[in-house]
Amino acid sequence: MPSIQRPRGTRDFGPEEMGRRRYIEGVMRKTAETFGFREIMTPTFEHSELYTERSGEAIRNEMYTFKDKSDRELALRPELTMPAIRFYANELTHMSKPIKIYYSTNCFRYERPQSGRFREFWQFGAETIGGGEYEADAEIIALAVECIRNSGLKDFKTRIGHLGVLRALLKDMDVDKENQSKCMQLIDKGELNELYNILGSIVQSEEKIEKIKAILDLEKSNTIPSKTRDIIAGCEEAIKAIEILERILTNLKALGVKEYTIDLGIARGLDYYTGMVFEIDVPFLGAEKQVCGGGAYELATLFDAKPTNSTGFAIGFDRVMMALEKKKTRIPVPTLVAYVIPMNENVKDEALRITTNLRRNGISCDIILMDRSISKHMKHANSLKAKYTIIIGEDEIKTREASIKNMESGEQKKVVFDNIAKHLKESENTDIPRE
Amino acid sequence: MPSIQRPRGTRDFGPEEMGRRRYIEGVMRKTAETFGFREIMTPTFEHSELYTERSGEAIRNEMYTFKDKSDRELALRPELTMPAIRFYANELTHMSKPIKIYYSTNCFRYERPQSGRFREFWQFGAETIGGGEYEADAEIIALAVECIRNSGLKDFKTRIGHLGVLRALLKDMDVDKENQSKCMQLIDKGELNELYNILGSIVQSEEKIEKIKAILDLEKSNTIPSKTRDIIAGCEEAIKAIEILERILTNLKALGVKEYTIDLGIARGLDYYTGMVFEIDVPFLGAEKQVCGGGAYELATLFDAKPTNSTGFAIGFDRVMMALEKKKTRIPVPTLVAYVIPMNENVKDEALRITTNLRRNGISCDIILMDRSISKHMKHANSLKAKYTIIIGEDEIKTREASIKNMESGEQKKVVFDNIAKHLKESENTDIPRE
Repeated sequence: MPSIQRPRGTRDFGPEEMGRRRYIEGVMRKTAETFGFREIMTPTFEHSELYTERSGEAIRNEMYTFKDKSDRELALRPELTMPAIRFYANELTHMSKPIKIYYSTNCFRYERPQSGRFREFWQFGAETIGGGEYEADAEIIALAVECIRNSGLKDFKTRIGHLGVLRALLKDMDVDKENQSKCMQLIDKGELNELYNILGSIVQSEEKIEKIKAILDLEKSNTIPSKTRDIIAGCEEAIKAIEILERILTNLKALGVKEYTIDLGIARGLDYYTGMVFEIDVPFLGAEKQVCGGGAYELATLFDAKPTNSTGFAIGFDRVMMALEKKKTRIPVPTLVAYVIPMNENVKDEALRITTNLRRNGISCDIILMDRSISKHMKHANSLKAKYTIIIGEDEIKTREASIKNMESGEQKKVVFDNIAKHLKESENTDIPRE
Repeated sequence: MPSIQRPRGTRDFGPEEMGRRRYIEGVMRKTAETFGFREIMTPTFEHSELYTERSGEAIRNEMYTFKDKSDRELALRPELTMPAIRFYANELTHMSKPIKIYYSTNCFRYERPQSGRFREFWQFGAETIGGGEYEADAEIIALAVECIRNSGLKDFKTRIGHLGVLRALLKDMDVDKENQSKCMQLIDKGELNELYNILGSIVQSEEKIEKIKAILDLEKSNTIPSKTRDIIAGCEEAIKAIEILERILTNLKALGVKEYTIDLGIARGLDYYTGMVFEIDVPFLGAEKQVCGGGAYELATLFDAKPTNSTGFAIGFDRVMMALEKKKTRIPVPTLVAYVIPMNENVKDEALRITTNLRRNGISCDIILMDRSISKHMKHANSLKAKYTIIIGEDEIKTREASIKNMESGEQKKVVFDNIAKHLKESENTDIPRE
């Protein structure tokens, strides 16, 4: 089967890359857990309706769909918020609220493969279901920012807004729901000419359209521009949105998040957002710069559960990895600690016993029993980035002392067999780590 | 969408269950890494041919298949050995050998859902590619046994055999390849009447058929029965198989694996096994008792790579979890360390700052800012199994000392704000863990 390659748009991850990915994933997990979020997992495929009923048939073109034997259509999940809320509505409504959950897994989109976009890709995300309106929003932003900061990425920009301002202004101009959502999508895509064309054709008051322009033109800084209040004067819902945003920012300060830009023009592509929205960009990634998006939403009622404030985000894990690699960020992936070299046939049993003892002490240890020259052994130990080699020969068996070599410094020591585990544990804490 | 449930045969995992699964998965990962194995990951779907060309069209009925836009058939992976070897042949042949890899991920089989069998299920497996014939086999068995033992499972049975004995005897009777593989499948399923019917119809010598019977009837113990040599006398390939098995057992002893049964009747269902084979059962699971299967195989040549000794196993992760749950094995999943309770509006900012400080010190900490009675707070803290609650009220702000309560012992202490992280880290090491 020489022609069998992996499918287009997918990837194989080898040991080195996988080590880096798991390390960064571990950092994000640990961060979410310190915030009190706990992991959930939903199936890799769902009934297609879970996505098509809410997002329309258009999404079908981007989904991998197939039929089960009872002819019901299934789809590989394109995202994880809908399954999380389905799970909540079906089984978790009894839990003490707020429910704080995270996920770290793969999604699928059937789009043209291109730089930074894959047909199978990974998301790290979190949702707070049933939390207080502004406090859960602030915490979700803080968690997203800390996940990305803790990954080691420095050059990222957080933008925070609230959909309520634009929505309230549109509503105030008597734009109907369908056109509201069309306008929000145009704003999200930055297609402002088309936006003003539509508004011009349905709204009489030029003055009201100017308010939308004024909001989109607001100076971007880390405070809500004082002008905002003038623009939205008299529009109660917009004023309420600004008040919530102000409380979110107060909380963010106490949560230690100081660097962000207020952007009341963030519209997000999806209809289900209802309040705070935010995005995190890594500008040097160009077209793939957005590494995180999120906000407040309401989806529980879709599944016949009670209306529930929810807020969440998803980080594009592959893009974070891409950014870290572009910046050549050092990721301290643990490598093999010990590589045992038996010098001949007679010492193999003892060498295996030493290996087993190290492994049972939690020390990663490899051994090759095939007859190899010492230089071949050293080459293999180097390819595994082993920190120490342990030579066991006839002399070592006689004296019950192994020769341990630090592969970084070249330093060699004799250590009695029974103390090797202890010695390596102590050395690991004092010796310079191997890059 | 009240009717949208998860698809049949799939599962949602909530925070508690997911915590237990990740803990046990972590134990297996750690074990594999101490053995010098490193993780790889391949795509969730592959071209269908990867499975059908080797295993025949029959496997198609058990696979989830779908077409991509260029009309090529894809399949959700039913297992992970074929993708691992495809990956090796395509991209990893340059690596220093042996290549020791592991995987921990999901697979899919379209079978009738029943107890212990799911359409989406998890496997933890390992492969050694290009290792020495008996040493890699011994190490693979030892790794599988240690993964299961370290999970906390006690009542498991390991059976070890070598396909070479039965294969050589069948070959010696001039049974052709197709019938050899049919016979091996019957042996695997335990359908011995059917086996002897077939052999009776194609083999003249009753005496030779008796040898197969004798091998299958051998007493099961932890040594190769001395009778074996008599049965296979004169059959060179069978003798060689027994010699390899003897060397594997010698190595297993040095690797600390002592409990197993020799079973020369293990045939395994799949054609690609070539030598040592082994299975691990948990008898109290009944029909789903097999939790691990593996052995030596050769697949690299299928992908036009050089012939390469390979050996590996796959653990049915869900069955291990099922066994641990049936035995009510305690799984020490970490729970929330601290739950901060702000007593009123004025102290919320300080409470958030204390929370942020604990989180940044790696201590999991939750806080709810919504106005709640102290008893409601305590109830929520209990539902999260928090180890400590930290009360911040007006008095605490004045004295800069928080009231910390150990939720297990009920003991309360005053700790100055700046020392809370240090205090909790020390207490965590000395206080009794919360179940």
